[in-house]
Amino acid sequence: MSAAFEKVAILGLGLIGSSISHAIRKYGGAKTISGHAKSVETLRIAREIGLADSFHDNPADAVKGADLVILCAPVGACGALAAAISSAIRPGAIVTDVGSVKGAIIKDVGPHVPQHAHFIPGHPIAGTEQSGPRSGFAELFENRWCILTPLSGNPVEKIAALEEFWTGFGSKVERMEPGHHDLVLAMTSHLPHLIAYTSVVAAADLEEVTQSEIIKFSAGGFRDLTRIAASDPTMWRDVFLNNREAVLELLGRFSEELSVLQKAIRWGDGETLFNLFSRAREVRRGIIAAGQDTAAPNFGRDPTHKA
Amino acid sequence: MSAAFEKVAILGLGLIGSSISHAIRKYGGAKTISGHAKSVETLRIAREIGLADSFHDNPADAVKGADLVILCAPVGACGALAAAISSAIRPGAIVTDVGSVKGAIIKDVGPHVPQHAHFIPGHPIAGTEQSGPRSGFAELFENRWCILTPLSGNPVEKIAALEEFWTGFGSKVERMEPGHHDLVLAMTSHLPHLIAYTSVVAAADLEEVTQSEIIKFSAGGFRDLTRIAASDPTMWRDVFLNNREAVLELLGRFSEELSVLQKAIRWGDGETLFNLFSRAREVRRGIIAAGQDTAAPNFGRDPTHKA
Repeated sequence: MSAAFEKVAILGLGLIGSSISHAIRKYGGAKTISGHAKSVETLRIAREIGLADSFHDNPADAVKGADLVILCAPVGACGALAAAISSAIRPGAIVTDVGSVKGAIIKDVGPHVPQHAHFIPGHPIAGTEQSGPRSGFAELFENRWCILTPLSGNPVEKIAALEEFWTGFGSKVERMEPGHHDLVLAMTSHLPHLIAYTSVVAAADLEEVTQSEIIKFSAGGFRDLTRIAASDPTMWRDVFLNNREAVLELLGRFSEELSVLQKAIRWGDGETLFNLFSRAREVRRGIIAAGQDTAAPNFGRDPTHKA
Repeated sequence: MSAAFEKVAILGLGLIGSSISHAIRKYGGAKTISGHAKSVETLRIAREIGLADSFHDNPADAVKGADLVILCAPVGACGALAAAISSAIRPGAIVTDVGSVKGAIIKDVGPHVPQHAHFIPGHPIAGTEQSGPRSGFAELFENRWCILTPLSGNPVEKIAALEEFWTGFGSKVERMEPGHHDLVLAMTSHLPHLIAYTSVVAAADLEEVTQSEIIKFSAGGFRDLTRIAASDPTMWRDVFLNNREAVLELLGRFSEELSVLQKAIRWGDGETLFNLFSRAREVRRGIIAAGQDTAAPNFGRDPTHKA
């Protein structure tokens, strides 16, 4: 990587923050890393596994002298975090974030970034269902998209530098308007998580079927839904509270489609079911063709599968 | 395996039928296999890859002399298939099936099984999103549950023989009342598939977001939902038409839970969201503890993941 940053401050050391640290160690992108986490326990673990070169209880101390500041806290915590570091941000620094929502982040964080610095919101579309400082790994961003939603006034060379930082980790970068980002993500990520959580709770509330039965027979499809239902509750609460309009809009559309299927089932309309299922299958094939999932059966997750 | 069958007739050579064939070749369970498929093309491929010792256009020819007959056709086709083989079923033979619905199968198939034979409905909870005669593999049933729903009058030694057939492939066998099976499967399999199909179609209908964007950013959760939406449309049409009451009942419960979440989002009730998400996470942990899924992030599907 040609234009590495001098010092990157990673504020928040969960799955994404710790993965950025590992990725920098493996691929470059910054000469030194300063780290901050709100939780004492997270900071202790981060120190133990060496996620940064310096560790700070106070986020403003981590930010001092950094030419790249990355907010890796849950969406709802970023505003307060930005306020706490505001006066420590050095002239010319880039401030970015990794939040799953962009409109709310811009509203919450933007006012705290001083005029002499550059706030370029970002979102790496990468993650696993695990969380915490031990869950990160350097390859998390490989072959994944990272969306930047630059603001008017962002200098082109600063956007380019941030873009290079992400492509250095193997990411592909796309630029997007913040509102469009929030709609695309509501569909591809927020709604699926909401549905996953709902399915799991509906199953757990079923008095005629024991939890043990649900779990035993989950290979029939239920386990797919439940993977993402294991994601960090705090992060996801914040996502839904901060992307309310887009999520509610798509939830309405989902419910409409579900009603169409419900009616087809009730009336025994096999043709509607067949046509709709066939169409859905085509979309799935597109995802595999685009390299965003494996074509191996069961995501290749079954260790006994030899085919 | 001690008590192998002399001749097994596999009627239907898709994912499940072809996997049974591979499993018999690898683990035993039958001395010879006769095969039938409705589609000429399927039968041609089955012959090419040697899925049976003899191949038959007419299912009744495949059944002649078989002491185990396995219906591996879509649920909606099993009644006609049973009618076609009825007169060829030999005395003492076991007739079973692999359908995801048991009530309707018993109603459709039962009357065609002669008094001198024994219909023991079955359902291996195993599968991938792929279909067709080339999709099978011997290990499909390993460490998976197979549910038998014996009928009154089934001799215990016949049930035991069928149970042994499945455990020989590495399956764990559970016996269940047919109606309970249909409810458990509606929750663990049928509803997840319905939700998956609905999500994919809702996404495809979104005019503000391109299909290419949906696909590109599907790593955010959408690809999880879409795996099972790639499953065989004919099979799934038949499942929904034949397990209507249980599916509609659970769909109602799912919609209620979704409304609770929808309301919490609309009113900014973060506590309700957080509590519900935390509860869902616990259920997921139970599935991993029960060995029905991998604990590896992303189902272990990301080849770049080294953690």
